[in-house]
Amino acid sequence: MIKKLLVANRGEIAVRIIRACRDMDIESVAVYSEADKEALHVQLADEAYCIGPTASKDSYLNFTNIISVAKLTDCDAIHPGYGFLAENADFAELCRECNITFVGPSPEAISKMGTKDVARETMRVAEVPIVPGSQGIVEDTNDAVNIAEGIGYPVIIKATAGGGGKGIRVARTEEELIKGINITQQEAATAFGNPGVYLEKFIEDFRHVEIQVMADNFGNVIHLGERDCTIQRRLQKLIEETPSPALDQEVRERMGDAAVKAAKAVDYTGAGTVEFIYDYNNRKFYFMEMNTRIQVEHPVTEQVTGVDLIKEQIRVASGEMLSLSQEEVQFNGWSMECRINAENPEKNFMPSPGRIELYLPPGGLGVRVDSAAYPGYMIPPFYDSMIAKVITYGATREEAISRMKRALSEFVVEGIHTTIPFHLKLLEHETFVQGDFNTKFLEKYDVLNS
Amino acid sequence: MIKKLLVANRGEIAVRIIRACRDMDIESVAVYSEADKEALHVQLADEAYCIGPTASKDSYLNFTNIISVAKLTDCDAIHPGYGFLAENADFAELCRECNITFVGPSPEAISKMGTKDVARETMRVAEVPIVPGSQGIVEDTNDAVNIAEGIGYPVIIKATAGGGGKGIRVARTEEELIKGINITQQEAATAFGNPGVYLEKFIEDFRHVEIQVMADNFGNVIHLGERDCTIQRRLQKLIEETPSPALDQEVRERMGDAAVKAAKAVDYTGAGTVEFIYDYNNRKFYFMEMNTRIQVEHPVTEQVTGVDLIKEQIRVASGEMLSLSQEEVQFNGWSMECRINAENPEKNFMPSPGRIELYLPPGGLGVRVDSAAYPGYMIPPFYDSMIAKVITYGATREEAISRMKRALSEFVVEGIHTTIPFHLKLLEHETFVQGDFNTKFLEKYDVLNS
Repeated sequence: MIKKLLVANRGEIAVRIIRACRDMDIESVAVYSEADKEALHVQLADEAYCIGPTASKDSYLNFTNIISVAKLTDCDAIHPGYGFLAENADFAELCRECNITFVGPSPEAISKMGTKDVARETMRVAEVPIVPGSQGIVEDTNDAVNIAEGIGYPVIIKATAGGGGKGIRVARTEEELIKGINITQQEAATAFGNPGVYLEKFIEDFRHVEIQVMADNFGNVIHLGERDCTIQRRLQKLIEETPSPALDQEVRERMGDAAVKAAKAVDYTGAGTVEFIYDYNNRKFYFMEMNTRIQVEHPVTEQVTGVDLIKEQIRVASGEMLSLSQEEVQFNGWSMECRINAENPEKNFMPSPGRIELYLPPGGLGVRVDSAAYPGYMIPPFYDSMIAKVITYGATREEAISRMKRALSEFVVEGIHTTIPFHLKLLEHETFVQGDFNTKFLEKYDVLNS
Repeated sequence: MIKKLLVANRGEIAVRIIRACRDMDIESVAVYSEADKEALHVQLADEAYCIGPTASKDSYLNFTNIISVAKLTDCDAIHPGYGFLAENADFAELCRECNITFVGPSPEAISKMGTKDVARETMRVAEVPIVPGSQGIVEDTNDAVNIAEGIGYPVIIKATAGGGGKGIRVARTEEELIKGINITQQEAATAFGNPGVYLEKFIEDFRHVEIQVMADNFGNVIHLGERDCTIQRRLQKLIEETPSPALDQEVRERMGDAAVKAAKAVDYTGAGTVEFIYDYNNRKFYFMEMNTRIQVEHPVTEQVTGVDLIKEQIRVASGEMLSLSQEEVQFNGWSMECRINAENPEKNFMPSPGRIELYLPPGGLGVRVDSAAYPGYMIPPFYDSMIAKVITYGATREEAISRMKRALSEFVVEGIHTTIPFHLKLLEHETFVQGDFNTKFLEKYDVLNS
């Protein structure tokens, strides 16, 4: 078993990992930027070392300094959390070369899933449903027009080297397609140094549903059910829940099986998430991408399965077998997570860093808070604005929602603006309560003023 | 369903009940003494009213003022919590006369269980195991000597009107018995106005194991498993857990059945707890008493069964049927509770009231905190010294203990002394970890200096 672990992250996920270490009697080493010397993860870890100036590239993304601290403190493993180095195949490779266990999948698995057309092709071969489209890069506009006629308009043109909403264009007619191909190729050549584009059918109304998978080094792969992350603002998830209000048991099982297949196709190890586009009108789902790391929303899965995903990550990274089989995974009740950001929802979600003057997280039955905030904490303006995750659970969705409303209404955060008032409005919204919505929900409804 | 509920209590249990009201869309009315105007329950309730001066007898025990507030604010129910009026049959009777739902059992059930020899006799008739002893009050010393010879020494002499450790005396020989009977009768006549005493076999080494029951007005009674409350200091429970490390499935089922029988014998309704002396050397258990109210340690049962006991109390008090049958009660994992008091364990647990300067409750997976404390809160010296209950849960006892150690080690309470350091020592104690102890554990071991 891993004896000493360096946490290469900050904020609530660093606290989350340190807590798992404490639960497992593993020594923890925190690292921090100059801006973070008062941070909670620094206070909670057994040891803590500054790894550079405020800018992430000089600290939390600084390979050399992180590896040096790990070596100097005799850490046998590094947990990257999410973001920063979590999906950096080069860093995973460097850990391997330095004989440090990277708590995550192999560099090869990270690379395969990180390159869009490779991932798509790998899934096609593995018989994981992918959105109908071109097989690989389109050759020219004629090729594109033929493919589009085959799959039907609207279609989406995607640069293979793009990502995060960049290098993407929708075409609803042949004319738009021809124009779009040319423009996207030119843009991609300039922006990414790779003009390759491919085509997919554009599914307008869908839900974001993802499957948590967990795999060990012995070829065992299980899934731990789905999370519905359809409530998004500008591609940022705001509320996640499990189970999904949109899935029936038959689709749920098919999706779980597909996710396990996807993981097996890249010899996956550790915790990962296979994200799907769920076309609820046709009860079909398509591979979107695989996140080769733990995710922000992992707690809802922990609440309904009782499996501690961070402990399980550390266990399998230590070379142990999965602690449970697919048949042993049980699902109880309903869980929901709200991401609370230091932002002003009244002012278009403008970031609101500053000092937290009063702080009292909610408590009681059915409420979990994962946070790195504390009374007097100064939220720096340099990093992610998420300050807390409030997770509730109950026997039913209704109970999880009631407890979330209660928890958020008693959550005291003074001195800065937060998105709590926004979430409280959202939780009252009839369409949200009914569970019948898609990813356009927040474009369609002005939640704050409804 | 109850629409508006008055919470006739303070501290964490008042907060707990207000939270349940919020979850159920029931309006809540807090009451408070003059010393409690800044209390959290006052801030969280929908409405709050002062009901008198600091002394409990003038405020939290003030029938007239509490009923007046309930009437004036159109409350249709009163929840008494635990302590104060929770087991006061006269108050329950008064509520009935005033047409206010008392969230608890009938005055008759409270009375029957509140009078020791009546409860004992009721249990004997219902075939619930009772400690061998006299049938009712002993007539004189000759009678007592004959009974003691039948059941064997040591025996315990109990005043029928006593309670809470008062009016109790152990006799190991005939001589001690005769002397003890006389003294206890005289004391009881003076202290309780009732000289009646009865005899029981004295079981020296036992565990305190209790069963949570829940009953509706339609004759349905279920139990929700046991809680082990063996770790006590001067008859005050300090740590509670479920399941009990000392019970096997066979004893567990027998004890559960006995508790249901006990409840049925007094036409019980609502939440109640049947406490047993568990003589683990002989795998026998005996009725100790029934607490006709919700208990401090109820959360551990909620964590492993997923049943919200306060909601369930309110539901059945509203005239609804139990929301689940005995067969539907499921037990998952292990849960433990530590009661955190504002006391200095280094100075013989001297109370430590005062202002909480810094306050940050623990969070993360497997941790629940029920508390009425907040940063800047001034703990008054007039009431109970408990400031928080930390509840953890996990798949196993080991996991629940690890998480408790982690939670307590990150719990920040500055400005007063607390029992957190004591609990941390206790959780490391080998005998505690092994689960093999009895109610004398804290007499036997000097936990703080071990």
